[in-house]
Amino acid sequence: MKKTFTYGVVGTGAIGGYYGARLAQAGKEVHFLFHRDYEYVRQNGLKVNSWQGNFHLPQVHAYNDTHQMPACDVVLVALKTILNPLLPTLLPPLIREDTLVVLIQNGIGVEADVQKMFPSTQLAAGLAFICSAKTKPGEVDHQDFGQINIGNYSCTDSEQFQQLLTDFEEAGIRAREVEYLEARWKKAVWNMPFNGLTVALDDNTQNILQNPYTRDLVRRMMLEVVQAAQACGVKRISEEFADKMIATTLDMTPYSPSMKLDYDFSRPMEIEYLYTRPIEEAARAGYDMHCLRMLEQQLRFLQERRLGK
Amino acid sequence: MKKTFTYGVVGTGAIGGYYGARLAQAGKEVHFLFHRDYEYVRQNGLKVNSWQGNFHLPQVHAYNDTHQMPACDVVLVALKTILNPLLPTLLPPLIREDTLVVLIQNGIGVEADVQKMFPSTQLAAGLAFICSAKTKPGEVDHQDFGQINIGNYSCTDSEQFQQLLTDFEEAGIRAREVEYLEARWKKAVWNMPFNGLTVALDDNTQNILQNPYTRDLVRRMMLEVVQAAQACGVKRISEEFADKMIATTLDMTPYSPSMKLDYDFSRPMEIEYLYTRPIEEAARAGYDMHCLRMLEQQLRFLQERRLGK
Repeated sequence: MKKTFTYGVVGTGAIGGYYGARLAQAGKEVHFLFHRDYEYVRQNGLKVNSWQGNFHLPQVHAYNDTHQMPACDVVLVALKTILNPLLPTLLPPLIREDTLVVLIQNGIGVEADVQKMFPSTQLAAGLAFICSAKTKPGEVDHQDFGQINIGNYSCTDSEQFQQLLTDFEEAGIRAREVEYLEARWKKAVWNMPFNGLTVALDDNTQNILQNPYTRDLVRRMMLEVVQAAQACGVKRISEEFADKMIATTLDMTPYSPSMKLDYDFSRPMEIEYLYTRPIEEAARAGYDMHCLRMLEQQLRFLQERRLGK
Repeated sequence: MKKTFTYGVVGTGAIGGYYGARLAQAGKEVHFLFHRDYEYVRQNGLKVNSWQGNFHLPQVHAYNDTHQMPACDVVLVALKTILNPLLPTLLPPLIREDTLVVLIQNGIGVEADVQKMFPSTQLAAGLAFICSAKTKPGEVDHQDFGQINIGNYSCTDSEQFQQLLTDFEEAGIRAREVEYLEARWKKAVWNMPFNGLTVALDDNTQNILQNPYTRDLVRRMMLEVVQAAQACGVKRISEEFADKMIATTLDMTPYSPSMKLDYDFSRPMEIEYLYTRPIEEAARAGYDMHCLRMLEQQLRFLQERRLGK
């Protein structure tokens, strides 16, 4: 017997704004938490400029305080992981006993940390394969792709999990279930080289891959992630997957990953979950990610120089 | 029976200009090859602004073409290694059968390549421990240190080699004989991390060492050089030597190594002998310099972006 889910979106930016708007466009009840954009969206609604067709939601359930929001069946957390220390304050009003929280966030180790904050809450990992950006208040540019992979971390209600996938599909979002840890490491194969190198070299994915030296460096870094994943028990990521990622990226328009945008706009970068945690987990499993550790150290240096400690 | 040596200086920049000027100041016959500074030095001589006291040589033997220069007992080659392909054209007029050529140049593999160009010429390696810069035409700023270590590569006349050391000492330059290959690798312990990282991070030695992340990175890179040296048969460089280099550098004023200056002034960088060659030699000996290979690739990228291929 299908129940109609209500959704909460915590972090209505390039990612949360896009997926939330798609769900709302499909008629789902979606409650959005805004920060700076709150007043603007109250007045003007939410716009999505998508390569699949633009749309505008003139009225959305907009909030600037989670204590005003109802508890929801599913909460999409699409904050930067930098803000995760706020979750114990932000999330409780949205969570019932049976709420499923989907962490659409970057990196490795996020679920473990959030589960410590909410030991009895059902968690899933959301892996967004999307090029999108929030360029203006209340406006999301959806430039390419859009699929979301969802991995079960601690969801015990398999019907609820399946309905989440169905709701996404009904909203025009390709959504499929993936094995949580494998999916996190697979995403790291792309994320770890490109997020940091675009910052360290101050350039985009295309220029970095066109140069034979840095293309080789990207590949060596991807293989480090593959090796690290294997050390951590994820055996099914192959070297060919790295080459496929490189080929896919060469087909993309020149792209600045989220960390590059964060750095360019002098916002803190997600170094912790994108680099430090996977590097530490690999080290504990006996594998040293030489180049990615070096990149992490370069990023820490650049960030401290730009933002102070 | 002591003969009076005549000296040729090929590459009268921050290094060649300093050592040549010191020898001339001490009364040695020194013939200088100039490029852009030739006319200026003909008119105004050569100035050294040294932390040990400034001096001015109003008249020096200045040339802008080695074919006008006499053959010399000792030739100091202080060109950037980038220009070494010019040596078969530049050097022959300066070389007799018994000439000793001292390559005061950066990196590993230089002597082997120059020996191929001049199979029967005596070669030595000159390792300058000096902070100096050529800031204006005909003017060298000597900011710190000044010692030169000289390693015998293929000098068969030990008296000649000893007299070279004596001449330097008489000119107020600390000079001592070192084991050639060990000295080259020892210098690489400092050169390889700092030359490249100051470029890649666009900062000076001091700021890089003050940050705990990049200080650790510098140390890891130094240990890579120590390991590579050991793989290449140089056993006597210890981990403590790396820590000593870090401590020494922390005591220096913030410094931009030669590669940083080259990059800032859009000149080609000495990537080949400072990075590619030692990395390749270590790889042939079975040791992979992970981080320094990555730094080399970053430098190649930055250089190609700035200068084109």
